[in-house]
Amino acid sequence: LTSKLPSSGTTIFTVMSKLAHESGAINLSQGYPDFDCNPELINLVNKHMRAGHNQYAPMAGVDMLRERISEKVNRLYGASYDPETEVTVTAGGTQAIFTAIAALVHPNDEVIVFDPAYDSYAPAVKLVGGFVKSYELSPPIYKIDWKAVRKLISAHTRMIILNTPQNPTGTTLKEEDIQELIAITRNTDILILSDEVYEHMIYDGRQHLSMARYPELQERSLICASFGKLFHNTGWKTGYCMAPATLTDEFRKVHQYQVFSVNTPVQHAIANYLADESHYEGLSAFYQAKRDFFAELMQGSRFKLLECEGSYFQTARFDRISGERDTEFARRLTTEFGVAAIPVSAFYAKGSDFGIVRFCFAKKDETLERAAEKLQKV
Amino acid sequence: LTSKLPSSGTTIFTVMSKLAHESGAINLSQGYPDFDCNPELINLVNKHMRAGHNQYAPMAGVDMLRERISEKVNRLYGASYDPETEVTVTAGGTQAIFTAIAALVHPNDEVIVFDPAYDSYAPAVKLVGGFVKSYELSPPIYKIDWKAVRKLISAHTRMIILNTPQNPTGTTLKEEDIQELIAITRNTDILILSDEVYEHMIYDGRQHLSMARYPELQERSLICASFGKLFHNTGWKTGYCMAPATLTDEFRKVHQYQVFSVNTPVQHAIANYLADESHYEGLSAFYQAKRDFFAELMQGSRFKLLECEGSYFQTARFDRISGERDTEFARRLTTEFGVAAIPVSAFYAKGSDFGIVRFCFAKKDETLERAAEKLQKV
Ligand SMILES: CSCCC(=O)C(=O)O
Ligand SMILES: CSCCC(=O)C(=O)O
Repeated sequence: LTSKLPSSGTTIFTVMSKLAHESGAINLSQGYPDFDCNPELINLVNKHMRAGHNQYAPMAGVDMLRERISEKVNRLYGASYDPETEVTVTAGGTQAIFTAIAALVHPNDEVIVFDPAYDSYAPAVKLVGGFVKSYELSPPIYKIDWKAVRKLISAHTRMIILNTPQNPTGTTLKEEDIQELIAITRNTDILILSDEVYEHMIYDGRQHLSMARYPELQERSLICASFGKLFHNTGWKTGYCMAPATLTDEFRKVHQYQVFSVNTPVQHAIANYLADESHYEGLSAFYQAKRDFFAELMQGSRFKLLECEGSYFQTARFDRISGERDTEFARRLTTEFGVAAIPVSAFYAKGSDFGIVRFCFAKKDETLERAAEKLQKV
Repeated sequence: LTSKLPSSGTTIFTVMSKLAHESGAINLSQGYPDFDCNPELINLVNKHMRAGHNQYAPMAGVDMLRERISEKVNRLYGASYDPETEVTVTAGGTQAIFTAIAALVHPNDEVIVFDPAYDSYAPAVKLVGGFVKSYELSPPIYKIDWKAVRKLISAHTRMIILNTPQNPTGTTLKEEDIQELIAITRNTDILILSDEVYEHMIYDGRQHLSMARYPELQERSLICASFGKLFHNTGWKTGYCMAPATLTDEFRKVHQYQVFSVNTPVQHAIANYLADESHYEGLSAFYQAKRDFFAELMQGSRFKLLECEGSYFQTARFDRISGERDTEFARRLTTEFGVAAIPVSAFYAKGSDFGIVRFCFAKKDETLERAAEKLQKV
């Protein structure tokens, strides 16, 4: 049996969450909250199940949900997405990303990925016969040198994958990045896959620079988002992809054969819930307070926290035992010190190891307190 | 923009359901029940949401659900699937099928498909660079000539896709088919993708011949199943794929990047519900009665019903207006006579048209009555 993904093992999220579970460690590895979603959302799902919304949803998503999504995005970013032809509901952000790649990357196409990157991008590209061109960002500030990016572009470049706020670094694209991006893609037919699942977790007064804000980028972008991250129910697996109609056509051709449709009662519930802006407007403030609380608790520890501008991840440098890789350190952190984290080398195609781990701070304050107490002992 | 699936339009299910909706027709096209699932299942989902099961499930599925699945299958078919390494919960039967193809079909591999076939198989194969070798089955009995199938096999044959009971024909594999299949795959490394989503809808005392029953086939098979079909909640999008560990390893490599995991509270609910055999044991009798009821109502009509051995679909021949294709007829049936059906040519790669439409009889008796009344007027 010849594997199509010979270099892929089990995702780091599964590995670390399992290890956390087995060793009874506090799990700050995989990105999900340890507090629950609003009971109102649960009531809504329950209501829609009882109302008999239990059969296939329309392939592109429940109409009302697509309308709410486009209203929100159009209002926030001054865009004009048409819910009928430009918004597709997916089984989570990860499916949106996979489907976009499967639908639009042809064999031998090249795709530019900024490492450290969410671990599904590269395998998805490889699975459909594309080539990943990794551009490595380096700590502590992970700044993009656009001249170097430009050099990666060839006649075969099909897509650039962006992620802002970025997982795992917590960095965000700035206006100057956007202008560079506009410049290097002008007069090309390069597509942009923009993973914006952390759009509502952005701190210190920064603005989320969605591709939807810039007509020159919007027309070539597939934007992916996640309700699991937005509403604290990552296990409900709902998200969406927005793209101009010609791109959405291709997206849906794959989506319809890949999953056909997404959980119906959950879609109805989210449609209702999304109508009230207060359900997500305060999210950045909520998570910024968690970020700051965790940073405070970690003061005086041997971890040096890097800047977190967005997302719900805090990266931290550690002093290495000579020769120890970040994967070993993360493992030891879990089994010896009782706190699970993700080694950031897992997000680099080449496994580049800068001695940094990622903590998820989407946790109850008491969880962060207990974790920091243990981390102070390292 | 070059499409990767230039010949794929919107699936026939979306087209016909939409037309049914727009013209106020009774929808016997897309395969889903118009009655609801057991309220007990809804109570269970609600209970698990309230118990806080709202974050990511394990990538391969909730442990308890995988245990219940393997217990059921091992008991019914004398197999010995290991829940830990051989069962993966998916976002419905369609995802299981897509993932199996994406994980195991390499570019230039050939895949044998028996037409008329569920419409996702061929596009999934094409999307990953494989070639579909269609074997056309003909009405009225759709018998497989295994000598002819053997001729389709080449050194490039990677997979045979089977579907028993078959959608849309309602035919089932017989013991002699199985023996032929064993013979032609012996000493090859051809894989079998077995779509068994209608396993519990099989009539007149027939037995479902799952690949899981035959060690020579089981060891090379990926078996896909659907809880939506089993428990009347197609909109909850849960199913699973079972395969020997080496195949499951490859399956999960793709699954983890494609959707990562499946709705958590639904998985817990189904795990509880599946423990009680009475929740599916009577399903064949239940649907056989519907099949017979519909057949009786259709007596004396201008439709000639073909034999239905399983699935919840009844196919029927019609007298053509000269030159009329089945797609036109199905459209006219919907808009002029008020009953939507699926033209069976949509299930043939070559669009072969034998003048047959498919009705879904997973409907309330009163719906079948109202539909038959209209169909009697054709
Ligand atoms: C789909 S599991 C991973 C969740 C996540 O976004 C992360 O931990 O980076
Ligand atoms: C996923 S929509 C199609 C449902 C179905 O199995 C059918 O109608 O054949």
